[in-house]
Amino acid sequence: MLFVEVIRKKRDGHELTREEVEAVVAGYTSGEFPDYQVSSFLMAALIRGLSRAETAALTDAMLRSGQVLDFTDLPAVKVDKHSTGGVGDKTSLLLSPIVAGGGLYVPMISGRGLGHTGGTLDKLEAIPGFSVNVTLAQFRDILRRVGCAMIGQTAEIAPADKKLYALRDVTGTVESPFLICASIMSKKMAEGIDALVLDVKTGSGAFMKDPKDAEFLAELMVETGQRMGKKVVALLTDMDQPLGRYIGNALEVEECIQLLKGQVDGNQDLLDLTHELAAWMFYLGGRSKTVADGRKLSEELLASGKALAKFREMVAAQGGDPAICSDPSRLPKAKFTADIAAETVGNVAAIQCEQMGFASLILGGGRLRKEDAVDPSVGIVLHQKVGSAVRRGDPLCTVHYNDEKKFDEARTMIVKAYTISSEKPAPARRLVQKVIGGDVILSSKKINA
Amino acid sequence: MLFVEVIRKKRDGHELTREEVEAVVAGYTSGEFPDYQVSSFLMAALIRGLSRAETAALTDAMLRSGQVLDFTDLPAVKVDKHSTGGVGDKTSLLLSPIVAGGGLYVPMISGRGLGHTGGTLDKLEAIPGFSVNVTLAQFRDILRRVGCAMIGQTAEIAPADKKLYALRDVTGTVESPFLICASIMSKKMAEGIDALVLDVKTGSGAFMKDPKDAEFLAELMVETGQRMGKKVVALLTDMDQPLGRYIGNALEVEECIQLLKGQVDGNQDLLDLTHELAAWMFYLGGRSKTVADGRKLSEELLASGKALAKFREMVAAQGGDPAICSDPSRLPKAKFTADIAAETVGNVAAIQCEQMGFASLILGGGRLRKEDAVDPSVGIVLHQKVGSAVRRGDPLCTVHYNDEKKFDEARTMIVKAYTISSEKPAPARRLVQKVIGGDVILSSKKINA
Repeated sequence: MLFVEVIRKKRDGHELTREEVEAVVAGYTSGEFPDYQVSSFLMAALIRGLSRAETAALTDAMLRSGQVLDFTDLPAVKVDKHSTGGVGDKTSLLLSPIVAGGGLYVPMISGRGLGHTGGTLDKLEAIPGFSVNVTLAQFRDILRRVGCAMIGQTAEIAPADKKLYALRDVTGTVESPFLICASIMSKKMAEGIDALVLDVKTGSGAFMKDPKDAEFLAELMVETGQRMGKKVVALLTDMDQPLGRYIGNALEVEECIQLLKGQVDGNQDLLDLTHELAAWMFYLGGRSKTVADGRKLSEELLASGKALAKFREMVAAQGGDPAICSDPSRLPKAKFTADIAAETVGNVAAIQCEQMGFASLILGGGRLRKEDAVDPSVGIVLHQKVGSAVRRGDPLCTVHYNDEKKFDEARTMIVKAYTISSEKPAPARRLVQKVIGGDVILSSKKINA
Repeated sequence: MLFVEVIRKKRDGHELTREEVEAVVAGYTSGEFPDYQVSSFLMAALIRGLSRAETAALTDAMLRSGQVLDFTDLPAVKVDKHSTGGVGDKTSLLLSPIVAGGGLYVPMISGRGLGHTGGTLDKLEAIPGFSVNVTLAQFRDILRRVGCAMIGQTAEIAPADKKLYALRDVTGTVESPFLICASIMSKKMAEGIDALVLDVKTGSGAFMKDPKDAEFLAELMVETGQRMGKKVVALLTDMDQPLGRYIGNALEVEECIQLLKGQVDGNQDLLDLTHELAAWMFYLGGRSKTVADGRKLSEELLASGKALAKFREMVAAQGGDPAICSDPSRLPKAKFTADIAAETVGNVAAIQCEQMGFASLILGGGRLRKEDAVDPSVGIVLHQKVGSAVRRGDPLCTVHYNDEKKFDEARTMIVKAYTISSEKPAPARRLVQKVIGGDVILSSKKINA
């Protein structure tokens, strides 16, 4: 097969065969096809788009470029969640212990934060001693003993994705729903899971700000996962303001511990979304007869302290300090804190979410480039969210920082991010806007029968 | 300027500024922008297309990546012709001496054959001793003394085009009229010419088989050249059967010598096209008051033997054996010849022109890859062209070959290429189907006033 002929075929808008798609991935992984041919192919694929069959073939070929984990020996269903990334989104840290506490296995391979969004691995690493870099043998061992384990991508998992993503990043070929779908799903399908719940974000803090784009991606991922024989649903959820109240790595771990202890303090949205996602994970995993039952189970696991116990167990298994669960002051703390006050009276009409993420990044909590280090201690704690009435001088949020100059820069962004209006607040946006793929799952008699 | 932002801009269908286009070319030429980014850019440019302004900016930047020759010291107008490539098209070898014989300068930088099409340089190198690899200083000297010189592209001329073309060749980004235009025009504009006549081929032997595609490219090149301040016209000409009667390097030189001597033998089409192109070269060069006068001048120069004398002078100046002009048997000869006869009675309805070019290539007269060597002696001499009535057994053509196996392969292709039909022949296709850019030239009062 002449690779240039495959490029020309895609360039002219024709559908590639499964064999052609496989040849592209295998040829790139082996080094036979050079970067300059693959980048030309990726641009053609981005502009012309891929069919559902091509997307599935690409995902499958990328998945099979590396190891596909096999946990069939474990005596319960394996289920995971993936989010497209947001600000203050720490649901993974809550879901792993809840769902493992409910008797399913959660083999979660996560990523780092990039740009305005945080990353699960960075949050976990804020826990003293916690290691996300474990071997696949250790991953299996922790998963078997604890029921959940949270690690970073290893070289064995979907190496084609790693190589392709690095190339897409520098060739203007990131923003394709087809390529994004193949990237996400190839890694998730390598986890040896039976079911997957996708949390696709829309709104000012999401990568896909337009709900139509987010929905398209969600449908694509659901169909691709289902074509690969997995139970997959996607929840289209609101990311128009930060999720919960805490933004920043150690701060978000602290917020999770509070919720696991049943302390809800202005972060009902985070708790709600966590229960919704857990409900679907339980349902797809066959642990509950309905989604509503799954939600009840999630609430019980939180109320009983079982989820907190599971979290403590996982932290210890991965080398972290389990004492943070009873004493969050053991988490890294920033040197300084400062309140940012409302400059006017009114209602909080909007919190520009991407800007809040960038403010946290500026403080040192995120990274612009993959190679940047993050400061676990810095961040922002929101006191007022959208819809709140505030008086002039009321603290909108507290900034945790280590560097005065960075604080000044972040403060300007935060002040701009808040819109305080004298008008009546608009009705709250729905947290879960749509469930995609649920019909297929609900109509299938094979599931949970 | 972040190159990835320029890629994304073109990817999303936006028009680039002149500065952005210049940065792409400069960055690639210097090595700052790697192949994998430029190939992604080229694919975006191919699919999205370029505006007229972008095409002109690209051409100009490629032109200025190297030396732009300056012949303003020479005491007459500099004019050239460029063809998009065909089979049996040897008009360059005739036009240079005719137009130089008429008192204009023809600084012609040509290319080699590729695929089914022949190349001027390969034909010239069939002349014993003839060198197309001369320095730019020698080029200038020969041009000044003789009035015409024909050489290959040097490293100094449009190096960006050389690098870009090599990348396009392996990344599926050749077939863009915008990139083709910039490639051709950047090299031609580097010749230091005042005027250019383009011969854009359509039909079964052309690269652009669809007349609409050919016309689009022609218009693009004319507008680009005119934007760059040159007098440019394009003739859309028929390449649905081989031009003239001889295909092959030495054979085509022989046919040129015959025509320069006034011996016309079934190759009136070649003679007509040559006079038409010469007519426009004389007219654009200010040497004739009308195109018709230019044609008359061309005919006179051939009839008087002045063109042949100029050809002999050029051959000698470039190290070739001038005695070939009186004794063409000094040209390389193939070991064997064999006739291919008509297998049925009827009229020649078509000669599939690309197949005839490939047959000559198979014999050794052309190249599939740039690095292939060519055999100057082999080729095909047609005895019957489209419209001729033939009886069974009449020789259609004579094949000149050195290798029995290659002959067998070529013979099969040639037999398939001829269509002999019992029906009345269709009216002959017009040789010059359209003149593009002529209106602008004819309506301009500045020219030939």
